[in-house]
Parts: sequence; structure tokens; C-alpha cells
Amino acid sequence: MRAWAMTDDGITLASTSSDKGMGSLAPHQFEAALLADVGHWLSPGRATPVVACGMVGARQGWVEAAYRAVPCAPAGELMSVPVTDSRIAVYLCPGLKQLSPADVMRGEETQVAGLLAAHPGFEGVVCLPGTHSKWARVRNGQVTAFQTFMTGELYALLAGQSVLRHSVGSQGWDDTAFADAIDLALASPAGISARLFSLRAEALLAELAPETARARLSGYVIGLELAAARAYWEGQPVAIIGATTLGRHYATALEQLGAQSEIHDGEALTLKGLHAAYQQTIGV
Amino acid sequence: MRAWAMTDDGITLASTSSDKGMGSLAPHQFEAALLADVGHWLSPGRATPVVACGMVGARQGWVEAAYRAVPCAPAGELMSVPVTDSRIAVYLCPGLKQLSPADVMRGEETQVAGLLAAHPGFEGVVCLPGTHSKWARVRNGQVTAFQTFMTGELYALLAGQSVLRHSVGSQGWDDTAFADAIDLALASPAGISARLFSLRAEALLAELAPETARARLSGYVIGLELAAARAYWEGQPVAIIGATTLGRHYATALEQLGAQSEIHDGEALTLKGLHAAYQQTIGV
Repeated sequence: MRAWAMTDDGITLASTSSDKGMGSLAPHQFEAALLADVGHWLSPGRATPVVACGMVGARQGWVEAAYRAVPCAPAGELMSVPVTDSRIAVYLCPGLKQLSPADVMRGEETQVAGLLAAHPGFEGVVCLPGTHSKWARVRNGQVTAFQTFMTGELYALLAGQSVLRHSVGSQGWDDTAFADAIDLALASPAGISARLFSLRAEALLAELAPETARARLSGYVIGLELAAARAYWEGQPVAIIGATTLGRHYATALEQLGAQSEIHDGEALTLKGLHAAYQQTIGV
Repeated sequence: MRAWAMTDDGITLASTSSDKGMGSLAPHQFEAALLADVGHWLSPGRATPVVACGMVGARQGWVEAAYRAVPCAPAGELMSVPVTDSRIAVYLCPGLKQLSPADVMRGEETQVAGLLAAHPGFEGVVCLPGTHSKWARVRNGQVTAFQTFMTGELYALLAGQSVLRHSVGSQGWDDTAFADAIDLALASPAGISARLFSLRAEALLAELAPETARARLSGYVIGLELAAARAYWEGQPVAIIGATTLGRHYATALEQLGAQSEIHDGEALTLKGLHAAYQQTIGV
């Protein structure tokens, strides 16, 4: 859980975070977990609005907030959550769903809403790298389609739990190895399934450096995603949400493939999106 | 560890197995672990030959048996292992390596040797499905090239440890879903990275049956392997080693792609290969 105290105008006054979340809380424990972290921000006699997004609205979260079907605006009507403490009024941002091909998102829609709030009239393609990377098309204020890739999770499983864990470093980098891996994945996506074990074999036979193996594995899985997402990025600029090392790797790979991108700070857009949701449906 | 008591002629008299192996034994513990299981097969005053293959010869095994470089016969000179008990004389079958593209195998070479012993003059392509599936070309009694795919490990990680674990069943099957997934993977290998998360989304949005998700995930990862291994199986029959459910899935997929295959029992070929190694280098 991450929380920010904000003014009506969207200025951040304070922030806090804990390791509490959907994975460790039963539904009836969410309110106490929230109050434990933000209670000192609250005033008696006034219900401070709390706007929440992400897995808090999942089936295993505080209360399930039903997905909204695309095409639709990234931010929709908030869902009110019953609470016992009179100092808070809690609202959830619903996630988005797409029926065919089947897909879902929770949390990213609020960042896309933040992008639209920060850049009114934005149209184009948004890429949100992460555990489950998302690509979304935005047109006329609406998310018209999106697609999820398990790239980050695949990387973590391969690097941390497969036989490759002996060969792939947890730090260091190799720009050339990453670039070559991106090229290879785009030229022959199927070939990547043949390249994975080579990282282990090269470590055994040719002392492949752990940081080179790391950059190459990263390039393989990101390259597979970019090969499948070509219809999203080809011939149009991409807004990458995530001013992180990972976001920069995506920007580097896209540039190598001849696509333009601009990186936006993910946390700033989450706050913009939460604030826009507050303004549109509560603060009016 | 699995062990078989065999006559000089290769007739199996008894077998045993335990969960002891490279993962749980330090090098100096292998001899005691072996004797604990097979001691009652031995006679004082006679050194019974023990021929071993697989990870027992890895760097983390009993003694490291150096890889032999292809092209070479699948069975080579055995490596003698020093022991303290006079009732056994232990020999290791070395694994194979390929320098470019880098690749290694330990254990499968003995099954290929068994295939050659059972079918003298065999030439063609061998497929050994498993955690790390191998494809090998055999010509003129030699393995000329091979390629490893992490298909089984990838499936286990995705089905058991990723977000897909909520949606993919551990039993049941769906022939049509498997066939469709194979077709999709061959037609658009990159697209598979976009299809994985759909298994989760379809379970959330459309109540995808766990056994259908299981067959589809299996078809995706096997299909990716077959797409990358096309040069091996296209236009020539394939000897599949593994008379298992997995081996039959490979045969079904290959048939769907217009390729012929024949399934051979893996354990029987391991025994044939170990016995051939014994005959060629010890029993003469």
C-alpha cells in the first residue's frame, strides 16, 4: 500500500507506504491497515475522501469494483466503500476489461487518466512496462483497446527460479547484449525459445558474464513483447509510463526499432489520475 | 537416483529409486547413497561394474565428467570414479556439448546411444521432450547437432508459480484447445507472449475451464518449441523418446503439422544405452 496526503488542488503534502496489500489482508482488515498508516493525517468530525486504485478493488481485495468495458474513458464512476470510521470516506477506481481478446487491468487505467489530465487531448499509444506490461490505445479521451504481456513476471521467473538463475546476474548491464537480443527477438520470435537455454550453456562452456546474460535475457523477453506489440508502436510515438530503468530500456529498444517514445513518471501520473477522479466525482 | 541390476546380457533383474541426487548430495556422499540402495545386490570379493549417466557427472555431481564435443558418437569413453568400497567399480557416461550455438546435455546422450543400439544404422532426428527438451540430429552413428528448449520448465513456472496458477488446472485436458494453441504458436510465435495473460483474463471474464487453460498453455509452449525446431522436423520422421503423456502430446502436435513420428520408451532406451556403454568399454 502506498498513500499520499493531497490538497484539494492536488498538491502532495505527505506520503507513506507499507507492505500491506491484497496478498496479506482479508477484506475486513483493509480499513484498519489504512488507518494505521494515514490516521495521523485525519481530523475528527470531517470525512476525508480517500481515492484508491489497483488491486484493492480486485475480487481478493477490499471490495470488488466491477471492471468497466473498453472502449471507455480510463476514469469512470468511483465505487463507494462502506467504512466504520467517520474520519474517512473511501472510493475505489474501477479497472478496465476487454472481452476479445480477453484482458483486464487494475491501476494502470488511473495512470492513463493521469496522462490525459496532464496532457489534455492526448491521443496515441501508451506503454506501461512492468510485471504485467500493458499497451493501450487512447483516442478521443477513451481507451479503445489494450493488451497485457507477462514480460516482467516471465523475466523474474526465468532469472530467479529457473536453471538460468545460476547464470543470470542480479545486477550489471551490457548495452550491446541487450540491443542484439532485441534484434534477434524481432527477427525471429520463435528462435527465442531456443536461445534461453543457451544462456546456461554459454555460462558453462564459455564463461558468459552474469551481467551480459542479464541484459540478454531482458532483451529476449522485452523483444518478444515488442514483436507481438508491433501494431501498437509501428509508425506512431509511444508514451511510456515509468521513469525507471525498465522504462528506459523500453525507450532504448523502441528507438533501436525506429519508434519514438517519451517517458512519463509513473507515480506523478498515478497522483494526477487519482486527483482527477476526485475532482470529477467527489470534489465537485 | 534410479538404479537397475542387470545381467551381462542386459536383462534387468531388479530396480530401485530414491530422491537422492545432485541437488541434495555433496560429492563425498554419493558412494554411501548408492550403496544404501544397491548394497544388497552386491557380492563381497567382486567389483560389480556400475555405469551411471546424467547429472551425477555434472560439476555439482559426484565427479565432473567433461563434456564431449559434437559431432561425435553419443556414447564415448567412460570415466572411472574412485571409490572406497571394493564391491563396486563406478563409471560415468560423459555428456555432450556443442560450442555454437552453445548447448549441453547430460543423460539424453545415453538414450540416443540406446536408440542406436536398438536400431543399428538409425539416422534422422530425435526429440526428447521434458523439463529441458532436446532435439538432436543423428547421422552415421554420430550426434551432429542438438538444441535444448526450456519448454517443460517454462510450463511448470507459468502453471505453478505465475499469476496463471489461479487459472491453469493441474489435471484434465482439452484436445481442441491444445490443437488450436499449436496452430496459433506456429502461425504467430510472437503472438504467444500476448496470449499468456489472456488465460488469466478469460478465467476472470469468461470462466475459462482450468483443463482448457492447461491444454492451451501446454500448446503454446510446445508450439513455440516446434516453431523454433522446424528445421529439425520438417520433411523428415522424428524419433520421440518418451512413451509418456508428454511424448504423445508431441506426437499429436507433429502429426497436426504434417510430420511423422514414432515414440520410443525412454527408460528402455536408457537401459539399452547404459548396457551398450558397459559392453563397449568394460565388458569386453
